[in-house]
Amino acid sequence: MFYYSFTELKSYIFMQNKITKLFNIKYPVIQGGMVWISGYKLASAVSNAGGLGLIGAGSMYPNVLREHIQKCKKATDKPFGVNIPLFYPQIDEIIKIIIDEGIKIVFTSAGNPKLYTKYFQKHDIKVVHVVSSVKFALKSQEAGVDAIVAEGFEAGGHNGREETTTFTLIPMVKEKINIPLIAAGGIASGRGMLAAMVLGADGVQIGSRFVASEESSAHINFKNSVVKTEDAGTDLTLKELIPVRLIKNKFYHQVQDLYSKKPNTEQLKVLLGRARAKKGMFEGDLENGELEIGQIAGLIHKIKPAAKIIEEIVSEFKLTQKEVDEIEF
Amino acid sequence: MFYYSFTELKSYIFMQNKITKLFNIKYPVIQGGMVWISGYKLASAVSNAGGLGLIGAGSMYPNVLREHIQKCKKATDKPFGVNIPLFYPQIDEIIKIIIDEGIKIVFTSAGNPKLYTKYFQKHDIKVVHVVSSVKFALKSQEAGVDAIVAEGFEAGGHNGREETTTFTLIPMVKEKINIPLIAAGGIASGRGMLAAMVLGADGVQIGSRFVASEESSAHINFKNSVVKTEDAGTDLTLKELIPVRLIKNKFYHQVQDLYSKKPNTEQLKVLLGRARAKKGMFEGDLENGELEIGQIAGLIHKIKPAAKIIEEIVSEFKLTQKEVDEIEF
Repeated sequence: MFYYSFTELKSYIFMQNKITKLFNIKYPVIQGGMVWISGYKLASAVSNAGGLGLIGAGSMYPNVLREHIQKCKKATDKPFGVNIPLFYPQIDEIIKIIIDEGIKIVFTSAGNPKLYTKYFQKHDIKVVHVVSSVKFALKSQEAGVDAIVAEGFEAGGHNGREETTTFTLIPMVKEKINIPLIAAGGIASGRGMLAAMVLGADGVQIGSRFVASEESSAHINFKNSVVKTEDAGTDLTLKELIPVRLIKNKFYHQVQDLYSKKPNTEQLKVLLGRARAKKGMFEGDLENGELEIGQIAGLIHKIKPAAKIIEEIVSEFKLTQKEVDEIEF
Repeated sequence: MFYYSFTELKSYIFMQNKITKLFNIKYPVIQGGMVWISGYKLASAVSNAGGLGLIGAGSMYPNVLREHIQKCKKATDKPFGVNIPLFYPQIDEIIKIIIDEGIKIVFTSAGNPKLYTKYFQKHDIKVVHVVSSVKFALKSQEAGVDAIVAEGFEAGGHNGREETTTFTLIPMVKEKINIPLIAAGGIASGRGMLAAMVLGADGVQIGSRFVASEESSAHINFKNSVVKTEDAGTDLTLKELIPVRLIKNKFYHQVQDLYSKKPNTEQLKVLLGRARAKKGMFEGDLENGELEIGQIAGLIHKIKPAAKIIEEIVSEFKLTQKEVDEIEF
């Protein structure tokens, strides 16, 4: 016979958080996989601190991704994952590397979750798909994903066309699905994390806050720019191509000026050019580069080590839990 | 000597909710003042149920407003207020009526809070201003308002140009002001209410949920349309005039078609015409009318009495409070 203690039972039956259980991590805090930002340094720092670090494959050539995975394995013995935008040109090569290297957690975005979910799962990989609507949350659930990230309009970088915000998206998705739900978009603090869980999420994915971490690959100019960004400092633009939330810098204003001249898609593509994101976020050209960040940048005031960020989020979460208990009216 | 009991002390010093105290109401739940929706029937029903009902003056001729105020006083002995958009053409007449009729609570929006705040307060009226950015929250505080409503991008009807969502706006405003803060935009449930308070609000203003109440003046067609609206069923449009969030009906699509032809502001104004809002929301023309509602309509599934709505929100709030206490990881 095998007996559980009362505490164990409580934990296993009632309390165990679905996200910490799914990924075998300490805190239900996932660091979003971000192009030009989240290489092995950030991912391993987050995983070592008890969250789930994700390497952002979107800006990496296949051989670079392999290198980051190998370095990440050396830098942490904790679980970490890889985020893959499904429109990635060499997607088959990327998938082969993921399987070769024994990655056990994959977050997919910007594509059909039916394409690769079962294939990954056959290789013992947990699959999470990022969505911005109830419709795609249901499609992801049908595709058999292990969890869903529902990401609101306030998120940085590429974003859904529905423009549904985190505050409304999370309860509307929660009402329709029964698999674990991760909230993203606008979360950078323990209060934000608790609010997302109150709305129905089992855990959170945090992007912008980790851009301004010591371990992120963002250029120091971009990190400083995030810290200086205030509310209303970003906008969702380029909706004719793929909507993307940017800091309102010189490049952004060039895009808006072009809009006032009623451009066609081709003219927009020419202005956008190539490598604007790399130029801004990785090379630190704050005027001519694309600076992807979320609205919550207005709440980020200091560059900190990833471990410190997680520690502060968890400690504010627990303090706020107690405050909630004391609300009376 | 005068002694407080421990419970009283706890309540007065630590716990008493700033919003219930400010307005002398039972629950920190305010029903947003909405054009064509919130007359005396809805406002008095909400106030009688322990919230704060607001008459929406924006769609009323001065004599109609006076009638609604007088009927509201007969229908409830609880506090209620009036919402005034400051661009109202006969604003001086409206203000005179408010003072004549002994109204004690005014919510102002869409204008400079410095204009009338002190004047109202001289007449013993509490003034709350609605904002959509940190900048205007600070201006409102400087103007001496008694509280601020910070309203996010997901809200129905007229909306700020900054497009900042409730999830990010509330903590960013909270960080900068020290007067009572009311969250609006996307809140329709007890979970939403608690999430807003976790983010830093002292209370909530709820609009869309009360549109689909028995006592609202919305046409039954519009109420049914709200109940049927799903996520991604609304959009913020007409940004060249005043941004407004609408259900994507035939009229909305006409606006979008006109956009594809690169209209000037005058052409937009002609299409918008007059009385589109009345036609849609009050007269029930679901094709040609303007149907103002928030993103959270996707979570509203039934027309209910206002008192029932408040009862459900408060009871879900308290249940969720207990759930929060049990979160462990």
